[in-house]
Amino acid sequence: MERRVKKALKEIVGEENFTDALIDLIAYSKDASEHSHRPDAAVWPITRDQVSDIMKLATREKIVVVPRGAGTSLAGLAVPEYGGIILDLGRMDKIIDINIEDRLVVVQPGVIYSELDRALSPHGFFFPPDPASGTVCTLGGNVATNAGGIKGAKYGTTKDYVMALEVVLPDGRVLHTGSKCMKSVSGYDLTKLFVGSEGTLGIITEITFKVNPKPPVISTAMATFETLEDGGRAISEIMYSGIIPSALELVDRQSLVAINQNTDLELPEVEIMLVAETDGYTKEETEFQMKKIMEIFHENNATTVKHADESKGGAAALWTARKSAYGVVARFNNNLVVEDLAVPMSKIPQMLRFISDLAKKHDLLIPTVGHAGDGNLHPVMCFDGTDPDQVIRVEEASEELFKKVITLGGTLTGEHGIGLAKIPFMGLEHDETSMDVMRSLKQLFDPNNILNPGKMGLEA
Amino acid sequence: MERRVKKALKEIVGEENFTDALIDLIAYSKDASEHSHRPDAAVWPITRDQVSDIMKLATREKIVVVPRGAGTSLAGLAVPEYGGIILDLGRMDKIIDINIEDRLVVVQPGVIYSELDRALSPHGFFFPPDPASGTVCTLGGNVATNAGGIKGAKYGTTKDYVMALEVVLPDGRVLHTGSKCMKSVSGYDLTKLFVGSEGTLGIITEITFKVNPKPPVISTAMATFETLEDGGRAISEIMYSGIIPSALELVDRQSLVAINQNTDLELPEVEIMLVAETDGYTKEETEFQMKKIMEIFHENNATTVKHADESKGGAAALWTARKSAYGVVARFNNNLVVEDLAVPMSKIPQMLRFISDLAKKHDLLIPTVGHAGDGNLHPVMCFDGTDPDQVIRVEEASEELFKKVITLGGTLTGEHGIGLAKIPFMGLEHDETSMDVMRSLKQLFDPNNILNPGKMGLEA
Repeated sequence: MERRVKKALKEIVGEENFTDALIDLIAYSKDASEHSHRPDAAVWPITRDQVSDIMKLATREKIVVVPRGAGTSLAGLAVPEYGGIILDLGRMDKIIDINIEDRLVVVQPGVIYSELDRALSPHGFFFPPDPASGTVCTLGGNVATNAGGIKGAKYGTTKDYVMALEVVLPDGRVLHTGSKCMKSVSGYDLTKLFVGSEGTLGIITEITFKVNPKPPVISTAMATFETLEDGGRAISEIMYSGIIPSALELVDRQSLVAINQNTDLELPEVEIMLVAETDGYTKEETEFQMKKIMEIFHENNATTVKHADESKGGAAALWTARKSAYGVVARFNNNLVVEDLAVPMSKIPQMLRFISDLAKKHDLLIPTVGHAGDGNLHPVMCFDGTDPDQVIRVEEASEELFKKVITLGGTLTGEHGIGLAKIPFMGLEHDETSMDVMRSLKQLFDPNNILNPGKMGLEA
Repeated sequence: MERRVKKALKEIVGEENFTDALIDLIAYSKDASEHSHRPDAAVWPITRDQVSDIMKLATREKIVVVPRGAGTSLAGLAVPEYGGIILDLGRMDKIIDINIEDRLVVVQPGVIYSELDRALSPHGFFFPPDPASGTVCTLGGNVATNAGGIKGAKYGTTKDYVMALEVVLPDGRVLHTGSKCMKSVSGYDLTKLFVGSEGTLGIITEITFKVNPKPPVISTAMATFETLEDGGRAISEIMYSGIIPSALELVDRQSLVAINQNTDLELPEVEIMLVAETDGYTKEETEFQMKKIMEIFHENNATTVKHADESKGGAAALWTARKSAYGVVARFNNNLVVEDLAVPMSKIPQMLRFISDLAKKHDLLIPTVGHAGDGNLHPVMCFDGTDPDQVIRVEEASEELFKKVITLGGTLTGEHGIGLAKIPFMGLEHDETSMDVMRSLKQLFDPNNILNPGKMGLEA
């Protein structure tokens, strides 16, 4: 990058909000995926107008800009594949308005998920998506990836809560989308076009979220199953039984083994453990739902069914088990790729069986956890990246995995996004017309291809 | 329209699915709005491929095509403002799949809303939006306008249930969007771009909807208020009290007068009547929520609070009152324009007061009903279209109304769309950048401007 460009950047954001120090650039070359590429510089804008000025400069100079939240992407969304400027939105971290009366909050993109949750808590409200990285990830990143999480089965994902956005377009213009009203059909839904667009169409500088009253009563239970089919069928039956659990999570045998090796939870090392949560305004209602779930557990040959005793922190222990899964499976080997896929609910048993067989076939460890309630599974490929043979086996297994996912009517990604990781598989899910329309949209918004280029398989 | 074009159309759909009879063209010149313009021909395609062939022909010949469902639009969405071909999707009316296990249904666009509801009912599931025109409107039209309805406060609108679409683009290509999985972030959200796009970007030929289990227990109550402010405050307080009613509807004094003149419901002719509904799995839960609502009614000086006695059909009577409102206010005068606006929840009292004052100022009858729970109001302008003075007063009042809506942070339309009716006001809500982006999208998808042109204010 030319010195005069760096000088211009410093003039926009100030010396203290610019870096081209090697150590920073190395840090910014990665996210939570296995991908990496070094940027030429990084900036921390403080205002929307600075973001706009940076994009005007970038358009003039045809320089790549990669917006970044906390860099927790598991699919390479925040890796500057073509170099350029990392635009870290972490210093735009103000909660601008908490307006319970209008059931909305207005935030800057750098606010951390759990900060918002903390701020809403005294009002009895919450922002439901609950991504696994909630204590570190930013809300701007949540919008850019359409983040999901544990509450998805009942409460949906980020997209269901974004009411309005302020977006800086690649040419520096500022676009306002959506409305602060609960309902609006005024013009095209520009808001949803940016949600999940992985920072390729514009830079989100302000977000208005709808928030929900938090049901005060919850109930939690777990069940274990000796076969994948029994557990998978239980998931499917729960989801069409007439109730909707607020969470229905899955941990497989290999994950349970890892959890037991690294914690003192002493979980039964069965084929599948499920953790279910129901919520409501009254204890009777949550138990009504939980009773139905526990019946389905029993009918599907659960070997253990345990209703958490709230007074003894039983639910907390179950959630610790589920939430510790990533951390502990990471110890299996040097490298791991957290895969992300979703299948129609009825296909869960088949998918689980396929993953289990795949691991055997390729002699790999593929512990699997997932948001079972919306068919979203995370098989975790554990391998040693210094062993070329293992790398090849992982690549082959991934390809077989996603071919199977598409055969079952599934999708390449439930919540992590395409980024760099899923580019090879885009053509499996999307036909030429669909890819062509997506490419045209990218071209329309970003004709110079300067905003997070090289992502989502949009380059021919 | 040239004879050879008509001949080509007949070849595509068959003689029996083509018309240019004057009586048909007159019928197709209108929808449920005050707008009208005659088309040159109309076709009833039976298959997706016929729709594609029609669009290829239209592209080649640069002929306008206006897709149409049941023609219940209140904003002129289905009026062929530039003539051309009406493409009536009413004969593509198959429910293709009801898949409760995967919690989804697949339908053709011509299926009537209530038909789907009837088909889902034995499974204990429902498709929540519940538009007022549900017994006649089509699901394709629901998607094209992003239809809302009585259940919006708790269950959202059509957009919240559209998982995947098959769309014929203006050039005849067939686009598949979305996924049949509960979660997917694979590529741009093309689905939502078509939801609410008023038939200006593509023709929807197949829809996959998510469906919900229907809570088995409901509770209904009504309250009356002597001042708009009391009623408005009650609405706002209910919506941030921590519970979410499944419906919260409003009927104002003039609507109550009209209802009493035309039914034997003998309602109290107060400033506002509210009808609230809660739902759940157990009676205790629905009553827990209703108790909170009734407390708020009392705290805001309700003059009557009545809990419907389910065993005596009390709820049905309340809903008859609310749902009959359109029919009866239509008798006030020769013409009526059902306006549609939404404001942030806290602004409802101010908005109601403004509408009341506006009616007095312009000497007009403007009865108002609304989906209060999401801030969506329908002031109904009643007038005699043969009296130029009244027409001018209605036009002036409309302009003042929407200026006020925008001042309060509201939106031009909560659920009816922009169509022809709101074109003059688009610039109030959307700035130049936003309008420019919408126009670019229209240009991208429909470069010849042949698909439902003249709508949404997208022509410069």
